Amino acid sequence: MTTQSGKSPNPTRRSETSRRAILTAAFELVGEVGYARLSIEGIAARAGVGKQTIYRWWPSKGAVLFDAFLMLAEGRDDGSAALPDTGDLETDLRTVMRATVAELTDPRYDEPMRALTTELLHDPALAAAYTERLDGPMKELKRERLRSAQRAGQLPDELDLDLAVEMLWGPVRDRWLLRSGPLTPEYADAVVRTALGGLCSRP
Amino acid sequence: MTTQSGKSPNPTRRSETSRRAILTAAFELVGEVGYARLSIEGIAARAGVGKQTIYRWWPSKGAVLFDAFLMLAEGRDDGSAALPDTGDLETDLRTVMRATVAELTDPRYDEPMRALTTELLHDPALAAAYTERLDGPMKELKRERLRSAQRAGQLPDELDLDLAVEMLWGPVRDRWLLRSGPLTPEYADAVVRTALGGLCSRP
Repeated sequence: MTTQSGKSPNPTRRSETSRRAILTAAFELVGEVGYARLSIEGIAARAGVGKQTIYRWWPSKGAVLFDAFLMLAEGRDDGSAALPDTGDLETDLRTVMRATVAELTDPRYDEPMRALTTELLHDPALAAAYTERLDGPMKELKRERLRSAQRAGQLPDELDLDLAVEMLWGPVRDRWLLRSGPLTPEYADAVVRTALGGLCSRP
Repeated sequence: MTTQSGKSPNPTRRSETSRRAILTAAFELVGEVGYARLSIEGIAARAGVGKQTIYRWWPSKGAVLFDAFLMLAEGRDDGSAALPDTGDLETDLRTVMRATVAELTDPRYDEPMRALTTELLHDPALAAAYTERLDGPMKELKRERLRSAQRAGQLPDELDLDLAVEMLWGPVRDRWLLRSGPLTPEYADAVVRTALGGLCSRP
């Protein structure tokens, strides 16, 4: 995580290297010490930069963490960002929902995501940025998969797609948030089946 | 909120009066200043007690706030705690869900509930206490209403009632948490209709 000193590196590249080191450090550190004990000093020490470097770019530890999530999301964006579309809506949604459950229960993500959620709860400006830059693009991918199902006649044209996304992902986030029950692949499957068929339908 | 001094009041009653004053102060204060600026000193000043009184009874501001929610919940428990059961499941669920939306959007409750949610996110022991003493009893009332619908043949016997509760309340909590859309009575109605009928059904 050091800059390639001694060879007068390109300052832009050096900045980018520092930026990535800082974001990686923030993400790892919050997973180890928890959000309450996460500090700019700690992030700076782990990233091998001065804390003034961090303060120059970010106003708060919440802002650093938010950018760490953005970097992760961009790292995944390899052009194949669309959700799977095999034509079988239930199977595709199970695949995606199982991936969501796997991420939420991954110890590397659990604490950083709880930290980010804390910030979102109390900071409407950050919540708006989250909606615009992280959650919004993900939601659009989800809506697009549902639109494809509408075109295939598998979902009614009148369906409110924002509500549909919340019906699918809300229960999973709720269970994660409150630790109110086991988050398993089977639970992911049951959420998809029940959301599509409704509580009144026989399994 | 002062004790009735000068008449050597019953110490138990005086304690109870102080306890209620402290919990009321904590709930009001967090709504005014936000959770980050809520302090034991501030609660003590508003309640008219010494801060040692608070520290004697509670280990943290999170614990005070939790008990404030418990007091509120108990204040509502007038023996008519069951959910409405007119025989019309959809109508009854709409009534309850509209009440949930009204509470979540009430400015007096919004910030205190965000504060409590923050604590629950990071404190598994408090989350367990919340499940056992606050959310658990509420969930049992919800499951009981759904069981009644099962007995009436309106819901399948095999329905997983924990999942059903999460399908109904999860989307609402999700929208509240992330401020991702308007929380209105119409939204409450749409959640109930869509959860019961499923995403695939025509409205």
